[in-house]
Amino acid sequence: MIRNEVFSCFVFYGVLLVMKMYVIAIVTGQVRLRKKAFANPEDAMRHGGLQYHREDPYVERCRRAHLNDMENIFPFLLLGAIYSLIGPSLPVARLHFLAFSVARVLHSVAYLFALRAPARSLAYIVGQIPCFSMALQIILAVAVYA
Amino acid sequence: MIRNEVFSCFVFYGVLLVMKMYVIAIVTGQVRLRKKAFANPEDAMRHGGLQYHREDPYVERCRRAHLNDMENIFPFLLLGAIYSLIGPSLPVARLHFLAFSVARVLHSVAYLFALRAPARSLAYIVGQIPCFSMALQIILAVAVYA
Amino acid sequence: MIRNEVFSCFVFYGVLLVMKMYVIAIVTGQVRLRKKAFANPEDAMRHGGLQYHREDPYVERCRRAHLNDMENIFPFLLLGAIYSLIGPSLPVARLHFLAFSVARVLHSVAYLFALRAPARSLAYIVGQIPCFSMALQIILAVAVYA
Repeated sequence: MIRNEVFSCFVFYGVLLVMKMYVIAIVTGQVRLRKKAFANPEDAMRHGGLQYHREDPYVERCRRAHLNDMENIFPFLLLGAIYSLIGPSLPVARLHFLAFSVARVLHSVAYLFALRAPARSLAYIVGQIPCFSMALQIILAVAVYA
Repeated sequence: MIRNEVFSCFVFYGVLLVMKMYVIAIVTGQVRLRKKAFANPEDAMRHGGLQYHREDPYVERCRRAHLNDMENIFPFLLLGAIYSLIGPSLPVARLHFLAFSVARVLHSVAYLFALRAPARSLAYIVGQIPCFSMALQIILAVAVYA
Repeated sequence: MIRNEVFSCFVFYGVLLVMKMYVIAIVTGQVRLRKKAFANPEDAMRHGGLQYHREDPYVERCRRAHLNDMENIFPFLLLGAIYSLIGPSLPVARLHFLAFSVARVLHSVAYLFALRAPARSLAYIVGQIPCFSMALQIILAVAVYA
């Protein structure tokens, strides 16, 4: 499977996207420390006292960016893996993976820097196009087994 | 792998469930627009002003439905894929995938239409039965490699 | 694939971690019932009235534990599956899977019992080490296909 070129191409982008999500997690943690805004009392106690057990708008923004990644990147990981197995041409498949990846990086940038609307929504929509395309092609390929 | 009938059957239901999750995301976005309730100030600014940077009970309901799907459908995608590889009979496997899929569609319906309890909980429990069954069969099949 | 020893080892730990997540979901539900704190009015109505449509700090703690699992265990499920396919030795691979699994169980224990900081953060960091290691090895193995 790992010798399948399309699958390996998917793996490359899929793992980069997972690492992009880890970056958002790390950013969230750093913002919590810098802004002193902790979700758990035990963390607040370690960093100055219970008054820091509180919400912060930018921490919440980071969390929404992370949650939106989970809603969209995790499904891509399934769709991309299976799409790789139904025999697409490498250039077409790479275009799907690359378009999704670039769109999701832009989505994160638009979210974390609070770019003016509709920058973030456009990135989201562009990212969904390769996903719908892959989902449709997969369904057509396996519908006979339903 | 895609020529494995059970795996292809899993793929069919798995991709349909991912598309079901996309529908919830789209519904959430539409409800945000209709109710004018945006999670981000930049979205509110684009749609009339900062007073629309606010929560709405039905938007929160959609978000809970989506989150519950992530908690349950994503694990199914792993369990179903691996279960397909341990050699179950096609009718038994299809029953697992179909039961889970129907239960999750009913779960979404019960959530989005706020059906009287315990409709949603029942759908959740019925959906977990094939998951527990697959998890158990997988663990028994691979325990020797732990 | 299921006859690949490393993959089967991954499957064992991956499915156990999914079951660990199910346990957190069950705990959350039980705490909601015991504390009478329901996210949905229809659930509150069934269990005594709308005054129980409310938040509870311990329910929120359970939810954060579950969400953190989704942020970290789901990516592991991709990384571990693919890492299994790039030909690591069984003892080294098992060490990755075992370290991550133990760290995540300790993370859940630290979260649900509110252990003193930085117990939970340490478990999180230890769990990320095998993930970064696998991600790096995978990227190096497939970079030629990007």
